[in-house]
Amino acid sequence: MRQSTLFTKTRREAPKDEVSKNAILLTRAGFIHKELAGVYSYLPLGLRVLKKIENIIREEMNKLGAQEVELAALQDKSLWEKTGRWDDKVVDNWFKIRDENLGLGLTHEEPLTVIMKDYVQSYRDLPLYIYQFQTKFRKELRAKSGIMRGKEFLMKDLYSFSRTGKEHDEFYEKAKVAYRNIFDRVGIGDSTYFTLASGGSFSKYSHEFQTLTEAGEDTIYIKDEAKKEAVNKELEMTDVQRPERKAVEVGNIFSLGTRFSEALGLNFKDEKGEEKPVIMGSYGIGLGRLMGTVVEVLSDEEGIVWPKEIAPFQVHLLLLGEKAKDFADEVYKTLTSKGIEVLYDDRDVRAGEKFADADLIGIPLRAVVGDKALESKLIEVKERTSDKTKNLSVEELIKEINK
Amino acid sequence: MRQSTLFTKTRREAPKDEVSKNAILLTRAGFIHKELAGVYSYLPLGLRVLKKIENIIREEMNKLGAQEVELAALQDKSLWEKTGRWDDKVVDNWFKIRDENLGLGLTHEEPLTVIMKDYVQSYRDLPLYIYQFQTKFRKELRAKSGIMRGKEFLMKDLYSFSRTGKEHDEFYEKAKVAYRNIFDRVGIGDSTYFTLASGGSFSKYSHEFQTLTEAGEDTIYIKDEAKKEAVNKELEMTDVQRPERKAVEVGNIFSLGTRFSEALGLNFKDEKGEEKPVIMGSYGIGLGRLMGTVVEVLSDEEGIVWPKEIAPFQVHLLLLGEKAKDFADEVYKTLTSKGIEVLYDDRDVRAGEKFADADLIGIPLRAVVGDKALESKLIEVKERTSDKTKNLSVEELIKEINK
Repeated sequence: MRQSTLFTKTRREAPKDEVSKNAILLTRAGFIHKELAGVYSYLPLGLRVLKKIENIIREEMNKLGAQEVELAALQDKSLWEKTGRWDDKVVDNWFKIRDENLGLGLTHEEPLTVIMKDYVQSYRDLPLYIYQFQTKFRKELRAKSGIMRGKEFLMKDLYSFSRTGKEHDEFYEKAKVAYRNIFDRVGIGDSTYFTLASGGSFSKYSHEFQTLTEAGEDTIYIKDEAKKEAVNKELEMTDVQRPERKAVEVGNIFSLGTRFSEALGLNFKDEKGEEKPVIMGSYGIGLGRLMGTVVEVLSDEEGIVWPKEIAPFQVHLLLLGEKAKDFADEVYKTLTSKGIEVLYDDRDVRAGEKFADADLIGIPLRAVVGDKALESKLIEVKERTSDKTKNLSVEELIKEINK
Repeated sequence: MRQSTLFTKTRREAPKDEVSKNAILLTRAGFIHKELAGVYSYLPLGLRVLKKIENIIREEMNKLGAQEVELAALQDKSLWEKTGRWDDKVVDNWFKIRDENLGLGLTHEEPLTVIMKDYVQSYRDLPLYIYQFQTKFRKELRAKSGIMRGKEFLMKDLYSFSRTGKEHDEFYEKAKVAYRNIFDRVGIGDSTYFTLASGGSFSKYSHEFQTLTEAGEDTIYIKDEAKKEAVNKELEMTDVQRPERKAVEVGNIFSLGTRFSEALGLNFKDEKGEEKPVIMGSYGIGLGRLMGTVVEVLSDEEGIVWPKEIAPFQVHLLLLGEKAKDFADEVYKTLTSKGIEVLYDDRDVRAGEKFADADLIGIPLRAVVGDKALESKLIEVKERTSDKTKNLSVEELIKEINK
């Protein structure tokens, strides 16, 4: 994409009403726009990152054999009364529609359990794994963490439906591996810990994936560095006396047992013809939170640092000076014809501004075409996280991008 | 995908609470699930169709040079008061959040105009075209048309920002062509008319794309069959006395003028340094409505008929009898290895049921592997809309699919 046609622009100043690093950098770089506290719109660069995260998660969910759906946000009061989760005294962050018996889905155990009643009768219909990317709404009071905690946010929620505890446990282990793959691929695997936590109203324990960052609202103790295992401080276990670390929950997995299947009548006939409630699990990842965490963990003083797999573009091509324009246009054309995603800074602005913008936007590879390139036909290439530059031919640059 | 693993199943009976053909067929075939009147969830087959429609629209929007964003659904009261559209007396289908000054976006002129103020200052910043696929919420009283009219629905909304009336008109013409391409590609081009209609509160006239169907809630007069032009009956023009036809609005394009830019202060400095309000347009397509319209227009007595570009799978492979299983597995493997999307009916059910399900689900090409295929290695291939079958080798089938 030609940067001259991109409608967003960068800005030097931090927005006055933001305190979190992710919101400040993403706003300055033109990735997001704040609508109100905890509510953000995604602009072209931000949407590209979000879609890449979505595709990574989709690939890992499909590998698990999960099937994708998309449920509605509008939720009927009567359904949630059956599981005792409509009352504000029980769930305090419902957005409810004025003068209607409707609320906005903050999670989807209830409606999906009802859908599954149409399709699950016998043990032959199970196990099943269903997921979606869907916008959740939650009345968040603590909405000061940029896109890491929102009143409205895109979530991947996966639900498992199993016949036995053993079958549930086996899938639970597979889901852990899929989650680990996701956090590795988005670039925060090294600082992400599989963490034992409270089960809330569902069960004694649950598991979270916690990523170390000062921007996190949780505190964990690291139990095993090699295995990347930790314990959430909320459990107050006495046998873990490691130093406290601030962390953010980037994913959670819950064993729901028969809490929802019993309340809503999701049963199956086992091999002996006996009717049994389905054993359920739920597995969530907030996509905005994940994107915000990447910014918190990896950015530096100059701006954002996107990992390769989720960068809005693969390479940021900078044209310096008018003389090299034809050659830069040619490089842009060659790269895009190879299917490479290029942000081409063809704007008529100073070199210093282009360099600063490239650092702020954070594309992994910067490729500069200046006057010097006119004779040599060499492009000055630098990684976002390195100070070293090297001069490459177009062919060598293509190899560098695809390696 | 192996149909034995697909969690949805077909059903013979129409759902009791549906009257529209699209809802009945899509529910029977397992594409959608009704949550409440006017609110549907998309199940795997339905989501595949919706995503294909989304991709067609995205391609046509990108060809127009439009840039994709995704705005929030939650909307602040104070913003909409500035354009006089918060009051229930002015806009009667707002969903508003109980005890909060928040509503759910029924359209996005207001928030996008505010975003553009950050990025538009000079004539050099224009023109711009911004679009999104975003869930809209509307308090619909008439929610009896299945996925054609919903309280919650995915919409593509494109907005144009131009400097002059001429620039606006030129883009308006290009958007018409893009819309025509979209309706052609989803398979309803022949029965879709560019229709002059009332401009509502925005302007004297607007333009709609109306598709002929008895399920439609509009009435149009066809003005020019060759040019596919019509007039909406609501205009009560005396010079058009053609027969009335029932139709559904599948797209609309609106000249907004400076209605929103003036109310919210979206101005630009022209070449002479004069401050002027931006001229805006909006261009909507409801994806669920489009999908529902395709079902209404093209389905037959046996079930749904999907056009090639939006079918959930390219080919429906049916295994009849256990003997041919190895060969059918091999065909499935060969086709998927070529990147072909196959729904493989490997279930242990009667042939009659498989044929009926194939007709109901509506994939354009049916390929049957039965006992006879064991020696000949030929596959019986039939188009969904034809009674003729032909026997093809795997290689010939691949050619047939890709033609």
